[in-house]
Amino acid sequence: MIALTVEATCGRARLGRLTTPHGAVTTPVFMPVGTVGSVKGVTPDQLRACGTQMLLGNTYHLMLRPGADTAERLGGLHRIMGWDGPLLTDSGGYQVFSLAHLRRIDDDGVVFRSHVDGAEVALTPERAMDIQRALGADVVMQLDECPPGDAPREDVARAVARSAAWAERCRDAWADRDAQALFGIQQGGVFDDLRADSARRLVALDLPGYAVGGLSVGEGHATMSRVLDAVDDQLPRDRPRYLMGVGEPRDILAAVRRGIDMFDCVLPTRNARNAQAFTWDGRLRLRNAQWAQDDRPIEPGCDCYACRHFSRGALRHLFAAGEMLAATLTTLHNLHFFARLMAAIRAAIADDTLPERAAEWTERMYCRHGHSTS
Amino acid sequence: MIALTVEATCGRARLGRLTTPHGAVTTPVFMPVGTVGSVKGVTPDQLRACGTQMLLGNTYHLMLRPGADTAERLGGLHRIMGWDGPLLTDSGGYQVFSLAHLRRIDDDGVVFRSHVDGAEVALTPERAMDIQRALGADVVMQLDECPPGDAPREDVARAVARSAAWAERCRDAWADRDAQALFGIQQGGVFDDLRADSARRLVALDLPGYAVGGLSVGEGHATMSRVLDAVDDQLPRDRPRYLMGVGEPRDILAAVRRGIDMFDCVLPTRNARNAQAFTWDGRLRLRNAQWAQDDRPIEPGCDCYACRHFSRGALRHLFAAGEMLAATLTTLHNLHFFARLMAAIRAAIADDTLPERAAEWTERMYCRHGHSTS
Repeated sequence: MIALTVEATCGRARLGRLTTPHGAVTTPVFMPVGTVGSVKGVTPDQLRACGTQMLLGNTYHLMLRPGADTAERLGGLHRIMGWDGPLLTDSGGYQVFSLAHLRRIDDDGVVFRSHVDGAEVALTPERAMDIQRALGADVVMQLDECPPGDAPREDVARAVARSAAWAERCRDAWADRDAQALFGIQQGGVFDDLRADSARRLVALDLPGYAVGGLSVGEGHATMSRVLDAVDDQLPRDRPRYLMGVGEPRDILAAVRRGIDMFDCVLPTRNARNAQAFTWDGRLRLRNAQWAQDDRPIEPGCDCYACRHFSRGALRHLFAAGEMLAATLTTLHNLHFFARLMAAIRAAIADDTLPERAAEWTERMYCRHGHSTS
Repeated sequence: MIALTVEATCGRARLGRLTTPHGAVTTPVFMPVGTVGSVKGVTPDQLRACGTQMLLGNTYHLMLRPGADTAERLGGLHRIMGWDGPLLTDSGGYQVFSLAHLRRIDDDGVVFRSHVDGAEVALTPERAMDIQRALGADVVMQLDECPPGDAPREDVARAVARSAAWAERCRDAWADRDAQALFGIQQGGVFDDLRADSARRLVALDLPGYAVGGLSVGEGHATMSRVLDAVDDQLPRDRPRYLMGVGEPRDILAAVRRGIDMFDCVLPTRNARNAQAFTWDGRLRLRNAQWAQDDRPIEPGCDCYACRHFSRGALRHLFAAGEMLAATLTTLHNLHFFARLMAAIRAAIADDTLPERAAEWTERMYCRHGHSTS
């Protein structure tokens, strides 16, 4: 079973150790996204070498391809991905609302058309739990309804009620409580009272962990921070807290300072494939002609594989020539950067210096307009 | 400077050690192709782990992108590729004749239109040498004229004469004879007397190594073998011999038995990207539905990274989902297979058992129709 031990705090920020059936993770932790059975272009050995501790897989994608039955016959998602470390699967809800052609949503669940082959597929709380049982991740998520960022209050309130009811059904359908920890997902948008109401209903179910859903959907950094200010008191302090779909280093820093332990986002991997590299001095657009003859690594001093072996000029060439290795190398750098960022955050919590360091890093990454604007 | 020490023979087959400024290679050796600055989807560390000893880069592609000047400013092709081992570049001739829109060929050289941007580009023996000097590989190739496999005798004879004249100009333009070894390229198609004539002219130049060009262009296995039967006496025994663009395991086996030391081909890498895996029992087409729930590795007993961590079912899923990791993993397997094949060939030469082993392997790979036909 999953358990969080808080080892140090700095304000509301927590330095912890999350134990899972596939090993322990130090928190705050960032989980790279392996959408459909791989972190695109990167092997599990390379993920480990980048400092990756825990991965996320997407139930929506995996239920469509290869399908829950095939996944189970192949030994589950750990075996498919070749990853023997901690693993989390989402419930599919978010992608149903964002990617699929949604056909119907009611209190029972959702019916959608697959983006792969157009087939009509039903997803209920029970089905989401059964698929995730077949996938076999260490952490599984309840099915929730995630309204758009600009949804009116009544839609958000309905999503809160429906998500709470689905959480209870997920708990009842939860089969292997030793091998898999079920997390509830708080909804409530930007409405503090709805957030509080959602949290109360979920906490009553006494689940092993809680996620904050429905943020990072366009509300902006300041609003996200304000919502998270309230969450610290709404969720139990002895359970891990996971902010879904975040993300931006600035948002991660703000969220850690408000008590969040876990994050996931496609940002480091997707942006890498689009030739954007993260550094402590902002972002580098590696396709830019200015790097064509630059023999420095992406980030001088970085000890990632890409920076130890490849220059900006070489990477710019590989992107220009359409070589898939360019995406792989930049992904390795970005994942290494996110792992180093999280390690630096953990060290700053241990030193009780997170506010100063977070301000300094944010200024350096976003405000100095070094190569980040190029 | 490059030098070959022959350490054992088995019939005409030679087990040797090729020393280069970037380290030594045991021969017969297979060189994976890093066309335009990378072996597609694979890092240098992964190449090493697969048993890769030496790489090939394509001057034609690299002169167009990133260009010789940029390559030189970035520290040469070794630095661009992140590869510190032995490296060979071809002269660009073959690709000019096969890929580019050829505009003009005369005794001076060739003029073609780039397949990248349509620009008109000239390539002469002197220019080919200067570009390869900028790229900085350990072995550089003369510019040659490679006629099509079905070319009439008079065209082949003209290509022999022109290639010999260009070889002499390349030798005269050869700048750094300590850092780079120049290989001549024999032409002559399937005409034994033209092959002999080509060899005589090249050997008179006393070059560090000799390549057999103009084979593997559709003449078939039997004809290739017949031509190679004559080559052993035509080329000096104290120089490395390189069969360009080969290839098929069956052809490699036949060529080693006829005294060839070096090979290159896109077969293991290109076929991997098309989901075809090489094994001792023939080829596996990994997209086939029959593997969907098969939890065996590509080749049971294979200790490559892909076989140690991924099942056929997982790879089939990754190909079906369009995940780039599928191509990378299958490339790792195929390169490992080619490295093991070459190691087995070297061991059989040392044991003086190559004819029996080669017959056994060829039968197993091509004739038993196990999963190779599926």
